[in-house]
Amino acid sequence: MKIQKPVYYGDYLQLPKILNAQAPESAKYGDAAHDETLFIIIHQTYELWFKQILHELESVRTIMHKPFVPSTDLAVINARLERITSIQQILIDQIQVMETMTSLDFMDFRDYLVPASGFQSLQFRLVEARLGIKPEHRMDVEKQFFNSRLKPEDKKILEQAEQETSVLELLEIWLSRMPFSNFENFDFWGAYSKAVEAMLKSDYEIVSSNPSLNDKTRELELKNLEATKETFSTLLDAKKFETWKASGKVRLSQKAMLSAVFIHLYREYPALQMPYKILNSLVEVDEKFTTWRYRHAIMAQRILGTKIGTGGSSGHEYLKATTERNRAFIDLFNLATFLIPKSAIPRLPEVIKGQLDIVYDFVQS
Amino acid sequence: MKIQKPVYYGDYLQLPKILNAQAPESAKYGDAAHDETLFIIIHQTYELWFKQILHELESVRTIMHKPFVPSTDLAVINARLERITSIQQILIDQIQVMETMTSLDFMDFRDYLVPASGFQSLQFRLVEARLGIKPEHRMDVEKQFFNSRLKPEDKKILEQAEQETSVLELLEIWLSRMPFSNFENFDFWGAYSKAVEAMLKSDYEIVSSNPSLNDKTRELELKNLEATKETFSTLLDAKKFETWKASGKVRLSQKAMLSAVFIHLYREYPALQMPYKILNSLVEVDEKFTTWRYRHAIMAQRILGTKIGTGGSSGHEYLKATTERNRAFIDLFNLATFLIPKSAIPRLPEVIKGQLDIVYDFVQS
Amino acid sequence: MKIQKPVYYGDYLQLPKILNAQAPESAKYGDAAHDETLFIIIHQTYELWFKQILHELESVRTIMHKPFVPSTDLAVINARLERITSIQQILIDQIQVMETMTSLDFMDFRDYLVPASGFQSLQFRLVEARLGIKPEHRMDVEKQFFNSRLKPEDKKILEQAEQETSVLELLEIWLSRMPFSNFENFDFWGAYSKAVEAMLKSDYEIVSSNPSLNDKTRELELKNLEATKETFSTLLDAKKFETWKASGKVRLSQKAMLSAVFIHLYREYPALQMPYKILNSLVEVDEKFTTWRYRHAIMAQRILGTKIGTGGSSGHEYLKATTERNRAFIDLFNLATFLIPKSAIPRLPEVIKGQLDIVYDFVQS
Amino acid sequence: MKIQKPVYYGDYLQLPKILNAQAPESAKYGDAAHDETLFIIIHQTYELWFKQILHELESVRTIMHKPFVPSTDLAVINARLERITSIQQILIDQIQVMETMTSLDFMDFRDYLVPASGFQSLQFRLVEARLGIKPEHRMDVEKQFFNSRLKPEDKKILEQAEQETSVLELLEIWLSRMPFSNFENFDFWGAYSKAVEAMLKSDYEIVSSNPSLNDKTRELELKNLEATKETFSTLLDAKKFETWKASGKVRLSQKAMLSAVFIHLYREYPALQMPYKILNSLVEVDEKFTTWRYRHAIMAQRILGTKIGTGGSSGHEYLKATTERNRAFIDLFNLATFLIPKSAIPRLPEVIKGQLDIVYDFVQS
Repeated sequence: MKIQKPVYYGDYLQLPKILNAQAPESAKYGDAAHDETLFIIIHQTYELWFKQILHELESVRTIMHKPFVPSTDLAVINARLERITSIQQILIDQIQVMETMTSLDFMDFRDYLVPASGFQSLQFRLVEARLGIKPEHRMDVEKQFFNSRLKPEDKKILEQAEQETSVLELLEIWLSRMPFSNFENFDFWGAYSKAVEAMLKSDYEIVSSNPSLNDKTRELELKNLEATKETFSTLLDAKKFETWKASGKVRLSQKAMLSAVFIHLYREYPALQMPYKILNSLVEVDEKFTTWRYRHAIMAQRILGTKIGTGGSSGHEYLKATTERNRAFIDLFNLATFLIPKSAIPRLPEVIKGQLDIVYDFVQS
Repeated sequence: MKIQKPVYYGDYLQLPKILNAQAPESAKYGDAAHDETLFIIIHQTYELWFKQILHELESVRTIMHKPFVPSTDLAVINARLERITSIQQILIDQIQVMETMTSLDFMDFRDYLVPASGFQSLQFRLVEARLGIKPEHRMDVEKQFFNSRLKPEDKKILEQAEQETSVLELLEIWLSRMPFSNFENFDFWGAYSKAVEAMLKSDYEIVSSNPSLNDKTRELELKNLEATKETFSTLLDAKKFETWKASGKVRLSQKAMLSAVFIHLYREYPALQMPYKILNSLVEVDEKFTTWRYRHAIMAQRILGTKIGTGGSSGHEYLKATTERNRAFIDLFNLATFLIPKSAIPRLPEVIKGQLDIVYDFVQS
Repeated sequence: MKIQKPVYYGDYLQLPKILNAQAPESAKYGDAAHDETLFIIIHQTYELWFKQILHELESVRTIMHKPFVPSTDLAVINARLERITSIQQILIDQIQVMETMTSLDFMDFRDYLVPASGFQSLQFRLVEARLGIKPEHRMDVEKQFFNSRLKPEDKKILEQAEQETSVLELLEIWLSRMPFSNFENFDFWGAYSKAVEAMLKSDYEIVSSNPSLNDKTRELELKNLEATKETFSTLLDAKKFETWKASGKVRLSQKAMLSAVFIHLYREYPALQMPYKILNSLVEVDEKFTTWRYRHAIMAQRILGTKIGTGGSSGHEYLKATTERNRAFIDLFNLATFLIPKSAIPRLPEVIKGQLDIVYDFVQS
Repeated sequence: MKIQKPVYYGDYLQLPKILNAQAPESAKYGDAAHDETLFIIIHQTYELWFKQILHELESVRTIMHKPFVPSTDLAVINARLERITSIQQILIDQIQVMETMTSLDFMDFRDYLVPASGFQSLQFRLVEARLGIKPEHRMDVEKQFFNSRLKPEDKKILEQAEQETSVLELLEIWLSRMPFSNFENFDFWGAYSKAVEAMLKSDYEIVSSNPSLNDKTRELELKNLEATKETFSTLLDAKKFETWKASGKVRLSQKAMLSAVFIHLYREYPALQMPYKILNSLVEVDEKFTTWRYRHAIMAQRILGTKIGTGGSSGHEYLKATTERNRAFIDLFNLATFLIPKSAIPRLPEVIKGQLDIVYDFVQS
């Protein structure tokens, strides 16, 4: 390697550009508000982090696009997802910095910013699209809410991204490709099905005999159990699953779901350790954005009361409404529904075990 | 002072008691589950912290019970509230430790714990009662949900606590006693009222002329503004306020609310700095419990899926339902609604300023 | 107010500039390293936050430069300091994001960055200078270490800043101006001195009679007590204090130190609540930077091992060395040395109490 | 399963014991100090967490004691280590709760506690012993410091634990058993050695030609490089390594170190993903305790100034001194020293790759 020229810190980071990009609107009206700088800088750091998240998601998508994902790439995928959650924790933590700005401080410059609004962040919409949020998943109010706010050129970029394969779709393809939904010479799902039945029967007895439940609650719990039973049967019945999927209550295909359940049940095997980590990391990505939206909504309400935001809108109502909804990996989040106690998990035949295991530890001779 | 005998660490902390209080149920059935110890210990630390929170709240109540709260006691009140929020942060952080227990791990001992449930924590209910949550604030489902779970003797202790004066009630008395809702020789609230009108007029113009709003959204925003106007008029009109209070939408009296608004507007004066901090700390206490309930509900759902909890109940549904509701100081949280821009805040007459100020900094001669 | 033109989010934040300022060096050599983007973006967010910290410090300095700091400004000063510590917490938290980059990842582009180094951050040096770190406080190795790294024009800006009045100097002036070091008609420091003597006598007895100390430790502790005694006597003796100050072991003047001690002892009075908060916030600012340096050094060592950094230097050794040293407010940090038990604190005469107190809470008639 | 009797929350957690174990000493002297309850409760939660950490370490030791550690157990080991670091984060966070107690508050009851001291915590010493801290690793001052403080029966328990096999020793055995230090038909370490030489040569050129270094610094850096070269040669030379080990600068055997380096370099292979995680988690355990000691020392100094602690001793000096020293896995922490750029890492022969890999992803037909 031949290094051509020395690199200086400030040039490398392009600090002249970065540190001269804060132009408070209030100052333009001869009424500089001290806190507007914070407002600008905190949003700029948010956008820088969104850029980094997109960088990681692009890399994950590129790897998962391969017709065959090499096992050595799985650790890379997971490391990038874990980096994303690590960044998301900063996004959440930064809300505490924003909270050092009081209502009165914000009112000093709020009026100058109309109609700018965080809902005009193209990058955040791109992150959602890359993860797997499609226009059809959004509530009507949400679509209307921010679509009218994006610039035409930004709207176009978003629509393009929404048509490209998302991480959720790539995940489905990857999971469907796995050989876990149908083994030769071993009726795994039959064995699983029996274990489920036994578990539900035990749950039924517990609820029926629980002395601390009053009749009304007991009735409710029993109904709940019936629903759980139906859910399991839906997982295992291709037709029922299809109907379920059509209703929008589940997004992954049956094959993908079965693989995900299998991975959860046998996660200790070397072949499944990293896939399990990946499933977990994706849930974590969803969860961190959920927490971020929630905390953000509370913060906005505390600063604004029931007043309107800079975009002329009650953003916090909207944020609250989407807190729970905009999860790409909700199916993975709900996976615990399909798990059964360790003692009830079917024992794998040695030949399958062999396929999932690696032996590299030796008894010393 | 005469110290009678040396104190040893382990005796002082009564460690033989504390460290021998973990008896996993699973072990009793000959089937020791590794993670049950974590489950026990994390709940024990929660209960220890609840005890500490109750200790702080008792102290706050004792001070606020005085017919006259000395100004030097205000810093003490606030320090104790800030300690509570500091402890609450630990309660929230600890959820991450709980999350190291997976669904499968939990299923190893879940069935042995029936019908034990965190909803049987007497101390947590006492904390809520001390803050100001009364039975009438709870949803029917909530009352039914945990009342059937408490032991009779615990239910009695809780009912007793609910009848005693809460921090919310003491706050109302303290705020009502302040002389800010009615000054001699100065029509403060008239001046405030005019400032409000001017602000709303400006907001109305912004919404009307915002080119980026479509007609439907604009209409919505204008309705929103009308509602805001009505809210302000309710604050200032004793009769309207009474009706509002009767409806349960506000808990504090009009006098108390006006004092709280005044404190927010003139918080920089030495006389109001600590009262302002106290109002803020109370909102923070509410917010931390809200975050804790929310994170707790998500964690439960992730571990349980749609299955039932140890108490034979879908606790996470309940936790989510109460996340937002069980706030004692919701009126203070919404206070931003009544704030106006600094430039519009009425100037106080010198005599009133003098009452709020202290001069102890001197120009050196 | 007349708003001239609508403001859009992306224009307002100058996102085209901000989001196009990442040009990885590795890519220029045809060898794009995935993680270099993270390296750039994390440092850019650091610099944005440094800019915000400087903005807050400028404001604090402007207020404290006044010949008389109005009591209503003290809450503003403290709010700005608390915002700084809130930002510093983010700086610390971000180290976890950096730690998602492994040694191997970093080696992919390390060689391209020579000799860029975080030690070339002008803004960080300016923050130190604004707080009160002067060239004479820096270790020789430190001066040599980074001075050779700054560009000439940056070095000039730093030297200029080092000559201007720092927050530490402004604090000293403000504290010295307070009337607490010498009251008319009340020998406060005489009373304090007697209380100190009593306390040390009790400590002496405790150490002498502590049955769990062996002779060697007891001897050590008694020496320690003698030193404490000498420290107190130095605080109260103008001449001794002067010598102490000349030695560099204390930076504040005796008058300023006495005021700081007084504020700590009587912090509950309305007149002293905010000054007390300010002293505490300054210590907190120091402590957060100390933690940041420490965590930063550990992270660097973990990523680099004993290898050299991008600036061709073992930066982590240097970071560790300065962790504890570069504290501007070390005197405030050590203030606990001069506190005495509440029961021993001299009672103030009513006339002085009256000067520190405000009565605005009334017994209801 | 047959559940014999219902379980109640309060009984299950043994709350009557737990919540009646707080007996402030100050109250016994008729002088109840409000903050002593916090002091007791925070230390009780620390001890509960130490118990949990010991529970996890016991489990890790049991698994690692097996003559052959099944690959499916590795995920269990790592999950338990990650739980420990998750608990350690709480230990660190809790310092913020302790910091809500001021010097003055502490002085209200400090004298009653003599000579109790956190250094008398048997469980914390046991955690250190289980990890791998042996008496010979402790500084003389440290041994003297706390040994004189432990009760004779506690000292005996600790000495027993120090003689048992620690996690560090089990790690060494496990790593030594791995076949990575010597492959048949492939001179891995020869190839590695060549890559190292090339890397050092490049580093040498960078330092020599770096225009921003002055002569003195350059000289220093070149010395540094010589030392790095020597370190590598020590790793690869059995005799030199032995001498190094004898000097106490490294604790693991050469075989174990070589395996650890190999795992780091080829961590992406399924067979090495979990071993890599385990190595990292162990470093993290060390690092969290380091941070905890450091933050603890700072907190103690802030509360005590240069005064003596409850144990009649300047504990913070001691805590600072041991911050860096008491690391069991310092060799793993320093591992980055032995890593080389990805582009220089030797390519493995297919047969070895096959041993490290698992193929379970299929190209869809």
